[in-house]
Amino acid sequence: MAKTTSHIEKIILGVDPGTQVMGYGVLRAIGNKAELIAMGVIELKKYESHYLRLGKIFERITSIIDAYKPDEMAIEAPFYGKNVQSMLKLGRAQGVAITAAIMRDIPITEYEPKKIKVAITGNGSASKEQVAGMLQRMLKINASDMDIQRDATDALGAAYCHFIQMGKPEVEHRFSSWKDFVNKNSDKVHGNG
Amino acid sequence: MAKTTSHIEKIILGVDPGTQVMGYGVLRAIGNKAELIAMGVIELKKYESHYLRLGKIFERITSIIDAYKPDEMAIEAPFYGKNVQSMLKLGRAQGVAITAAIMRDIPITEYEPKKIKVAITGNGSASKEQVAGMLQRMLKINASDMDIQRDATDALGAAYCHFIQMGKPEVEHRFSSWKDFVNKNSDKVHGNG
Repeated sequence: MAKTTSHIEKIILGVDPGTQVMGYGVLRAIGNKAELIAMGVIELKKYESHYLRLGKIFERITSIIDAYKPDEMAIEAPFYGKNVQSMLKLGRAQGVAITAAIMRDIPITEYEPKKIKVAITGNGSASKEQVAGMLQRMLKINASDMDIQRDATDALGAAYCHFIQMGKPEVEHRFSSWKDFVNKNSDKVHGNG
Repeated sequence: MAKTTSHIEKIILGVDPGTQVMGYGVLRAIGNKAELIAMGVIELKKYESHYLRLGKIFERITSIIDAYKPDEMAIEAPFYGKNVQSMLKLGRAQGVAITAAIMRDIPITEYEPKKIKVAITGNGSASKEQVAGMLQRMLKINASDMDIQRDATDALGAAYCHFIQMGKPEVEHRFSSWKDFVNKNSDKVHGNG
């Protein structure tokens, strides 16, 4: 029998849902190689209403999912913040992004900023510039493109971190898709409420 | 000319999106009268995954909106909390509930718990039991029904508070629907991003 190597292709969407700016990055992972498909930044500051910003996050993530059909979503999710007010706002933005993925049955994995920095640069205290520089080299992105899309660094970092993690046996904060859960736990999902 | 009185009918959906339990209440307001249409509680604790809870909130609020066609949504939204972790989780639940309303173009108004208590009992330090008791009398709800749906008290309170506020000229944290905004600001909404 011929020796075969598994080269499963996976599309990974990374998102960084903030209240001012939302970044995203899309990677194609084939075996142990990853290439950039798309990256971008959605300015939310221009919308005065907090609700409009949330609606925009939902709408954009949904359209990105429909355009690139990711197999997985990685989210940059800080668990600590300056104060309860800012965490409430950040939580709202995260909740919207997560819901967009759940509604399309995309498995979600969350990564803390420090974990992303370690995965990419080996240093949990790396600057945004260092992370951007590493991603630029590893994914062969033009320096000028990376400069323009600087606010997509965290999102792209989350996607790349997930790509690295996929090769490892254990993945933290992992969510096997809702559809999977529904199939396995139909009694719970179709229960009362 | 005959004297006319305006009796605009409005359906108000009140929601209290928590991470353990989600409560809702639906009122029909005709002129200065309000009547209960529905109230309920969705247990979220039974879902182990935080993501499943968020998905459930979105799914249920969407189906409640589709069933009762509310004109307005009032949300019980604490702005302060014990710690940043709990506020992040609460923010996620609130973000999901808000998105469900935005996606159906339902205007949203947020009310702090204290404001709801003042509006209903006249006392910002009223107990949950006192708020439930007042709502039960004002909306002529059976005591046993109110007991069973005790966790819907805050949601029903938000809806009733909004009913009272509607009669007043100024409404805080008000969001005129997304569709309205899109119509008025098409340049902003269809802009870049």
